[in-house]
Amino acid sequence: MTKELKVVVVGGVAGGMSAATRLRRLVESAEIVVLERSGYVSFANCGLPYHLSGTIEQRSSLMLQTPASLAARFALDVRVKSEVVEIDREAKTVLVRNLLDKAEYVEHYDYLILSPGAAPVMPSQPGSERAMSMRDIEDLDRAMAWLESKPTTAVILGGGFIGIEVAENLVKRGLNVTLLQRGTQLMKNLDPEMAVMLSTRMRAAGVDIRFNTTATEFTKKTLTLSSGEVISADVIFSAMGVRPEIGLAELAGLRIGENGGIWVDAEQRTSDPSIFAVGDAAEKTDAITGESRLATLAGLANRHGHSVANAIAQAPVAPATPALATSIVSFEGLAAASVGWTETALRANGRNIRVIHAHPANHAAYYPGAETMRLKLIVDAQTDQILGAQGVGGAGVDKRIDVIATAMFAGISASQLAQLELAYDPQHGSAKDPINMLGYINRNIAEGYTKTIEWHELETYLNQGWEILDVRTSGEHRFSSIPDSISIPLDTLRENLQFIEGKKLVVHCQVGQRGHTATRILAQEGFDVVNLDGGFLTWKAGMASMGESK
Amino acid sequence: MTKELKVVVVGGVAGGMSAATRLRRLVESAEIVVLERSGYVSFANCGLPYHLSGTIEQRSSLMLQTPASLAARFALDVRVKSEVVEIDREAKTVLVRNLLDKAEYVEHYDYLILSPGAAPVMPSQPGSERAMSMRDIEDLDRAMAWLESKPTTAVILGGGFIGIEVAENLVKRGLNVTLLQRGTQLMKNLDPEMAVMLSTRMRAAGVDIRFNTTATEFTKKTLTLSSGEVISADVIFSAMGVRPEIGLAELAGLRIGENGGIWVDAEQRTSDPSIFAVGDAAEKTDAITGESRLATLAGLANRHGHSVANAIAQAPVAPATPALATSIVSFEGLAAASVGWTETALRANGRNIRVIHAHPANHAAYYPGAETMRLKLIVDAQTDQILGAQGVGGAGVDKRIDVIATAMFAGISASQLAQLELAYDPQHGSAKDPINMLGYINRNIAEGYTKTIEWHELETYLNQGWEILDVRTSGEHRFSSIPDSISIPLDTLRENLQFIEGKKLVVHCQVGQRGHTATRILAQEGFDVVNLDGGFLTWKAGMASMGESK
Repeated sequence: MTKELKVVVVGGVAGGMSAATRLRRLVESAEIVVLERSGYVSFANCGLPYHLSGTIEQRSSLMLQTPASLAARFALDVRVKSEVVEIDREAKTVLVRNLLDKAEYVEHYDYLILSPGAAPVMPSQPGSERAMSMRDIEDLDRAMAWLESKPTTAVILGGGFIGIEVAENLVKRGLNVTLLQRGTQLMKNLDPEMAVMLSTRMRAAGVDIRFNTTATEFTKKTLTLSSGEVISADVIFSAMGVRPEIGLAELAGLRIGENGGIWVDAEQRTSDPSIFAVGDAAEKTDAITGESRLATLAGLANRHGHSVANAIAQAPVAPATPALATSIVSFEGLAAASVGWTETALRANGRNIRVIHAHPANHAAYYPGAETMRLKLIVDAQTDQILGAQGVGGAGVDKRIDVIATAMFAGISASQLAQLELAYDPQHGSAKDPINMLGYINRNIAEGYTKTIEWHELETYLNQGWEILDVRTSGEHRFSSIPDSISIPLDTLRENLQFIEGKKLVVHCQVGQRGHTATRILAQEGFDVVNLDGGFLTWKAGMASMGESK
Repeated sequence: MTKELKVVVVGGVAGGMSAATRLRRLVESAEIVVLERSGYVSFANCGLPYHLSGTIEQRSSLMLQTPASLAARFALDVRVKSEVVEIDREAKTVLVRNLLDKAEYVEHYDYLILSPGAAPVMPSQPGSERAMSMRDIEDLDRAMAWLESKPTTAVILGGGFIGIEVAENLVKRGLNVTLLQRGTQLMKNLDPEMAVMLSTRMRAAGVDIRFNTTATEFTKKTLTLSSGEVISADVIFSAMGVRPEIGLAELAGLRIGENGGIWVDAEQRTSDPSIFAVGDAAEKTDAITGESRLATLAGLANRHGHSVANAIAQAPVAPATPALATSIVSFEGLAAASVGWTETALRANGRNIRVIHAHPANHAAYYPGAETMRLKLIVDAQTDQILGAQGVGGAGVDKRIDVIATAMFAGISASQLAQLELAYDPQHGSAKDPINMLGYINRNIAEGYTKTIEWHELETYLNQGWEILDVRTSGEHRFSSIPDSISIPLDTLRENLQFIEGKKLVVHCQVGQRGHTATRILAQEGFDVVNLDGGFLTWKAGMASMGESK
């Protein structure tokens, strides 16, 4: 590398900063200029909501680096309040506007790295300017200033990651929080019977969630809802998703992908070989479909930034692996994590899948403090490929989704999950870990030992003359059950076959396991029988998800 | 399957019971007899130590099933206090002794499943009969009775899984606990600089650990140590490992493997095709070497039991995958987990490896409650295959080892760990997860961007004229440092190169990360430079491990 290599980075968080620091470690002699529009670089954007409540007490904890610290350690020329307003690809220059004094100047580059991020979608109605977003330190400062004025009511527009995290922290701060969600559930990366766990917990914590609802009119202190209702809204947060910041790229004539992000190849190069793009503004390739997609995740941004530095330094580049979009969000200790595609999306795409719900404990049930989680695995019915997984619960949900994400990356089949050797002691797992259980259940279905149906298929079966057999104990059945179900506890099933002679049966228990044993007994006795996947708990969650979104 | 299929299972815990219950689900018509020598089946053997302290309050919580519950649910004929004393392979019968009335009878089988487990190694000196083990409910009952007599001192022989768990629970119960370890460290599945974290914590909790020490004489209230010292020992627990129970198999002329377990093929079949063996008594294949080994882990036992049932029922069998022996042990919330081989063992085998130590936080450092863990990755220097990993710390250690175990199972290379997409929010991880960091560090070494040396190699380097450069802050250096190290903080390194001109340098920081940046700067400036893997913390742990085992 010659002394002349000059690299300009647009955007000083996640992807951009990963590229800049990695490049410095590879090429000590390069001139590296980082231009950041906001007043801060390398801040913890995923931590911002937690300062609203004081959970993260010090604002300064969110500042991971400063221009000065980056100069000292990485010899980076970091300029904040510096907006790139134009790229001259021919001349290989950018036009930079200093946002403090409005002065503009030209900066040359050999390579340009675009990491402009994604802008929050904001409401556009008159009066909606007071809605706040939660993208950067300036947003946070604005929100903290509003909160100083002791508001009592807050409305959050949107029930994705940011909406849920802001809700948690505003509740913790003592505000009355209403959350408006355009659709019928929170978190589009979850299926409804999983998402309902999260909304149930949020409602229990006092968040007033309104599904199928948007804001139509904004006044200084209120909001009018699409239902016509007017509600108090001292503060408003917009969390309706983000749009890739592609203005600069578009202006420069760079190719834009089909999902509205900057098109890049596997080395993050745009249609101009001297310009790279990383982070939320760049399109990714989806691991399941192989098609392009957006995915606004810090992990991908960092990794792609690292890879761009390698490409520029002519170090070996690990081509971008397709995005699984593994993610997690928490509300008061309840985690909801996912990887890959949902059942909803796969069915909408006509994919032939099988679905497994399980309700395991995070560790040995006999050891104190075991918590039940809900896991879901979605598998290609032909190839046994894992297409997606979801988990909702307390401790240990993140671990199971991470293990499945690793399995998906590696191309392990769903049945092979049974073979994984996972660390077990009574505090951390079970001799058959929940992950192993998912693998065993999948094998039983794949090999034809049991046939399962989903909660949303039950009605169709009943309409076709099937009947429901509850094999839980009589106590469980009495406590709560599916209407019109026949009760024969599993442990007395063999003696009571005469009562169900000739019936086509949907068997269920609480979570699916006893149902499986019952299904095996009945199938071998010649019955037409299917097991209700995930048992009563999954059916109940599914019903709840339909009820709440009405 | 015909009505006549009769299967006899010897041993009613883990592997044996998994086989029996799975077989019932596959073959409703089979006659399945389970013969268990002790008075209990399907108990939580991994939970036993936790009843000593009352952490698991109810003895009954440890009883997962009873003969009656297994009869009701799985139509199993379970007979406790029933010891199989002989196998007649020609006649396909076993001779069963009822341990209550000593009556003996013959039971026919079509298939026999041996799951006899492994017997604790016990001391053999006169007086040592009072030493207790912790294998089954009878052992636990005996221990609880002893503890009723209000002992004040306890001595544990052996510092493996059981020894550590018993120590934790006896300390919690208020006893003065001494632990004798024959070798120089606890837990042979850990390397010394990792194991020392565990012994340090145990000593802080009051456990008096004596390395290189055995018991030589047993009296009613004391023990004489190999050092000559006599110590008080109101109760004694033996936790010196286990030996496969192969007596019955040997007597029947079944092939015994080279490690002293029952030889089995990939379907768990012994040298007699009608006899299977599973669990601690059966040999496994090692995932790293491909050679036979022992591994006494409940997860493997269950899985192999499941697979035997399939083989007998002529269902598809997933051949036994080689054992990674993933495991974890905890002491007062400090977890020590491992998978695969140790550095010590691999070096002893002359394997060309690279080693990586990291000290990441379990989740974003800016979010409250982040805890530092210690991770170690061991990689084949030629192929980039992951050969082993170890983790010691609080929350999140189990997750990282499980992810690596999954990666190892799948054959993901060490560098590919950088590409894994793991779930991140501030409570559960980092945008660059510790696992990703291990992958990046590995790539930097593999691709020649940095050269690292281990803590135990430092002395050799110093003897060859290398000098130590500490790039931490002056404050960190003053607080504690490696003797004779030169201090130049990383952030001022570029301006101070003249002070180290011409030197061969071992660079170090606290954990290795700043050291890497410094190494890159210096290498590009033409220095002979290596980075001390894992930094000061790993070096200090290594030194501590050498000191404590003296």
